[in-house]
Amino acid sequence: MLYTEIPSHRPNTPLLDTIDHPQQLRLLKRSQLEQVADELRQFILYAAGQSGGHFGANLGVIELTVALHYCFNTPHDRLIWDVGHQAYPHKALTGRREQLVTIRSKDGLAAFPARDESEFDTFGVGHSSTAISAGLGMSLARRYQKVPCDVVAIVGDGAMTAGMAFEAMNDAVAHNADLIVVLNDNDMSISCSTGGFAKHLAALWERGESVSISENGDAFVQPHPEWTYNSRLHSSATDAADNLFKAVGFDYFGPFDGHDVNQLAQVFEALKKRSGPRLIHIYTKKGKGFAAAEADQIKFHAISKINAPAAVNTAPKYSDVFGNWLCDEAAQDDRLLAITPAMCEGSGMVKFAQQYPERFFDVAIAEQHAVTLAAGMACEGLKPVVAIYSTFLQRGYDQLVHDVALQNLDVTFGIDRAGLVGEDGPTHAGAYDYAYMRTVPNMVIMAPKDENECRQMLHTAYLYNGPAAVRYPRGNGLGVEIQSQLTAMEIGKAEIIAVLNEQHDDFISILAFGSRVQPALEAAQAFAAQHDIAVRVVNMRYVKPLDEQLIDAIADSTLLFVTVEEHAVMGGAGSAVNEYLAKASIVKPMLNLGLDDSFLHQATHGQMLHQAGLDAQGIEKSIEQAWQKVMQVAP
Amino acid sequence: MLYTEIPSHRPNTPLLDTIDHPQQLRLLKRSQLEQVADELRQFILYAAGQSGGHFGANLGVIELTVALHYCFNTPHDRLIWDVGHQAYPHKALTGRREQLVTIRSKDGLAAFPARDESEFDTFGVGHSSTAISAGLGMSLARRYQKVPCDVVAIVGDGAMTAGMAFEAMNDAVAHNADLIVVLNDNDMSISCSTGGFAKHLAALWERGESVSISENGDAFVQPHPEWTYNSRLHSSATDAADNLFKAVGFDYFGPFDGHDVNQLAQVFEALKKRSGPRLIHIYTKKGKGFAAAEADQIKFHAISKINAPAAVNTAPKYSDVFGNWLCDEAAQDDRLLAITPAMCEGSGMVKFAQQYPERFFDVAIAEQHAVTLAAGMACEGLKPVVAIYSTFLQRGYDQLVHDVALQNLDVTFGIDRAGLVGEDGPTHAGAYDYAYMRTVPNMVIMAPKDENECRQMLHTAYLYNGPAAVRYPRGNGLGVEIQSQLTAMEIGKAEIIAVLNEQHDDFISILAFGSRVQPALEAAQAFAAQHDIAVRVVNMRYVKPLDEQLIDAIADSTLLFVTVEEHAVMGGAGSAVNEYLAKASIVKPMLNLGLDDSFLHQATHGQMLHQAGLDAQGIEKSIEQAWQKVMQVAP
Repeated sequence: MLYTEIPSHRPNTPLLDTIDHPQQLRLLKRSQLEQVADELRQFILYAAGQSGGHFGANLGVIELTVALHYCFNTPHDRLIWDVGHQAYPHKALTGRREQLVTIRSKDGLAAFPARDESEFDTFGVGHSSTAISAGLGMSLARRYQKVPCDVVAIVGDGAMTAGMAFEAMNDAVAHNADLIVVLNDNDMSISCSTGGFAKHLAALWERGESVSISENGDAFVQPHPEWTYNSRLHSSATDAADNLFKAVGFDYFGPFDGHDVNQLAQVFEALKKRSGPRLIHIYTKKGKGFAAAEADQIKFHAISKINAPAAVNTAPKYSDVFGNWLCDEAAQDDRLLAITPAMCEGSGMVKFAQQYPERFFDVAIAEQHAVTLAAGMACEGLKPVVAIYSTFLQRGYDQLVHDVALQNLDVTFGIDRAGLVGEDGPTHAGAYDYAYMRTVPNMVIMAPKDENECRQMLHTAYLYNGPAAVRYPRGNGLGVEIQSQLTAMEIGKAEIIAVLNEQHDDFISILAFGSRVQPALEAAQAFAAQHDIAVRVVNMRYVKPLDEQLIDAIADSTLLFVTVEEHAVMGGAGSAVNEYLAKASIVKPMLNLGLDDSFLHQATHGQMLHQAGLDAQGIEKSIEQAWQKVMQVAP
Repeated sequence: MLYTEIPSHRPNTPLLDTIDHPQQLRLLKRSQLEQVADELRQFILYAAGQSGGHFGANLGVIELTVALHYCFNTPHDRLIWDVGHQAYPHKALTGRREQLVTIRSKDGLAAFPARDESEFDTFGVGHSSTAISAGLGMSLARRYQKVPCDVVAIVGDGAMTAGMAFEAMNDAVAHNADLIVVLNDNDMSISCSTGGFAKHLAALWERGESVSISENGDAFVQPHPEWTYNSRLHSSATDAADNLFKAVGFDYFGPFDGHDVNQLAQVFEALKKRSGPRLIHIYTKKGKGFAAAEADQIKFHAISKINAPAAVNTAPKYSDVFGNWLCDEAAQDDRLLAITPAMCEGSGMVKFAQQYPERFFDVAIAEQHAVTLAAGMACEGLKPVVAIYSTFLQRGYDQLVHDVALQNLDVTFGIDRAGLVGEDGPTHAGAYDYAYMRTVPNMVIMAPKDENECRQMLHTAYLYNGPAAVRYPRGNGLGVEIQSQLTAMEIGKAEIIAVLNEQHDDFISILAFGSRVQPALEAAQAFAAQHDIAVRVVNMRYVKPLDEQLIDAIADSTLLFVTVEEHAVMGGAGSAVNEYLAKASIVKPMLNLGLDDSFLHQATHGQMLHQAGLDAQGIEKSIEQAWQKVMQVAP
């Protein structure tokens, strides 16, 4: 069935309603699976409309999910969903159907498989390309324990480009591990797939034949069945005579139609009769069964709640601020090249990619390569800009240290989604970038207080002849005016943005970083209105280098220092201030505000900030407490 | 020629001596190249004997290096040597011949290509598998600049298993980039190569035919020439009908004999006539031309100086302490599995691999996979131990955060080569692990003061049910007695190891971490002997969790806190202490000693520690200065 609307009321799903455990699914006849799949698709349409969130990928794996739970003895057998945003149908079939509408909400189901949520969620998978490694670990463990089971890693074609998937396949063959990899090929990551690997998959399809599998597990080649996926064909596919998976030592089967639930079930049953590393290649369509999503797969990668209130914040998104800056800077300087690891849309680069196709490099999901590619470009005198999420730069950390910073190469990092990320939850939080970057020599690290400063900082980082990063939050700016003029800022220079109660000589000095400048200012205003003490608020701007001169200048008059950041306290920007105070022999009470030492569960960004005590109210409360302590010990 | 001795005097190399720039090499007749190669081999034997350092790989690329510089117009054309420890012959041919004996010494040539050393060193390559990414960056940059040149990345078969090499190949095909990859296949990383990729390379050899190239650049298949590399054949090679490189979209040529300098030169000349991504596969022998090295390639991966003084420190190496502990723990607990990313020998695991082959997992150069493989094993209730160098764990950082810590999985990390690493230089320093690990929730991080504590900490980390790391330095222990009994330590408990001048009420409190405990103690003794102030020295043991109770207990009596660590001050262990003092409202002068914010050049470990002010003498001097400041401002 092809649906055209997201239902606003729960659809009627009589057969699906009987399945609260996959064991009940396994009692059905194979001829009933199509009905299960159809009901599940309707239900997922409804539930995703209620919760918002990942959409297209989930519609694409309906039949696959039904077939897997039908054929494998879950949870004894292990399913690992790579980048678990395709796991909604899996959750629905494993006892969590009616909770699915709570996904991505505070106290609701996690957006990704989560080990503490269900025994069916064997591995937490928020970052891509980990499933084969994790599955291999499980398979080798179970072999060693002599409790064998089937282990199935389900991996998208987009995720397969990340090097660690290749590392894991290489190692699986070393051990002749009993491991099934389902390559769910929809010719997409979030954007369109790119590179030699995508061409190879297209070639395997264009070849016109499949490696099929008989009931007793034998391979045989047959002509392609008649199904087509027009959108996925590449004009310059590589020669399909060479099969990459077979070359690395996997048994290869496919390609198969990933929406033929009966055939999938047949294939899985047969695959269970073989051992060793096996890969089954299926074609699916992102958004399958929902007309608009099939037609625009990028737009329908994720959706908003159908009854979501109109956005209250109409200020531009930081991603768009980045994207606009990128275009403007590129217009002025033809040395600018821009790199994204498969996040063209998320990073706000669509316009740039259209305007400057020859200067835009989507390297696929390949963060390690993205960073070193930039380093290589910088060696030739160009000025590459790497757009990357804070949480994904963790994947390119060694390359940042070794290939960029150690050689002091001129690479600019636009670090998006830094800090808490709301509904995306702990797997995508960008809470550690100050810590892991500032310890690295040669780095310049900035954090803007608002969207205009973000733009000017990006320009400043770009002009700086060395590695420099601007980290900015998920979501919208504050609504300030954005100056189209690009004006370089002085490196390492903070600004005092408020001096309150200045009739007093003694100060509380609040050193605020990035997104926390504005709430710190509000907290300071509320606090100052009630206390007989001066308060100054500093927009620190630079985590590295710190504005040591300013700290020196305000130290004498300061009775209490406060640092505020949307980052872990441990190793963060406040910690940098502490180090400087120690170095400068400035001995003063200090309050470091930031994220505590825990992974925060999903909620809205606002809820999470509130919970972390990092909204204006929380900041004020913490300052109040710290001030009381200072008063107690004051002479 | 097959040589049997490392010459102690500079050999006679009349033709080589005429080459101070590759341009002079290019003036020779092709028939003279063999003589150049033979003289270069003799010279490298001599020079490596003088300097110590990497050996086998350099002897293996003599002919390749000569052919590359003969055929390509370096430095206009770009050569990028992956894991540059094979770059000694390259340095010898590019104007640095007579300096080669200084390699790895203070102020001498770098052990790896270094951009600030020579224009021929296009990219700093100390960590493996970066060359294709960097080379692709250069190639795309030069295409964009419309100044095309040939770019050649030389990559070993061991380095090819790391995922980023695959990421880069995928991307090179996306751009149809003009890039030549020389796959230097010696069937080795430092250990023997492993996994599906190695089997594939063996299969390509066993196939008995080569894809050759005609003078005008056309490919043709011909039977194998007659050369054999017995040691490299695998019993269970995969089917060579599928060529991995062709599958991903590269033109493939080879395999060729990598020691036939004439043929190599022919092939490179022909390759220049083609465009797009091209891979040439050559077989070489590690240690080629030196009998003992050909016979034992692992032992001769690197050598010591032939006239090196006898080792003064006979205490066991920390790597061996780790290896012995691993065997002992495994004997007690059959849930222990051990993982190394291709560093079996360096990490001291040879004995374990022999005693417990079914529990030993060398995953090849694949740090990302190594960490997530361990996570998968832990999911099944096993207790994996990952042995990894501090600098290489940077490659698995996201996996540490996302796959291990976020799920609070029971994985133990034995982190070797932490701190400064002497002759291995800045590319291999482990100066950032405290910072990048301690910001991550759920981590326990320990640093032993000596080899016995290292052993007991490894046991403690192993028993701890969650992610725990023990980080220990390169080189030897202190010579203390090692207790064979394994005794768990209390998590988060420090020990006061000295109280000096205790007749005084006021203290300097030195909080020392890991390798710096002993020199801190010596510094304290020297300082206390000359001052009327009490000094206590604390072996902190844990960077996370800190022993907050102990800090609370000693705070009141402390006039000056000092932290000492072999790690960057920024974000390091001292920084963790600063954070706690702030949190506990303890306001005291603080001196944070550690590595400053720069990359330190190679020297001996002792020289580097001295330069960093982290030997006993330097620590004492810094305390003296800080104490003077405290006295100045004292009431």
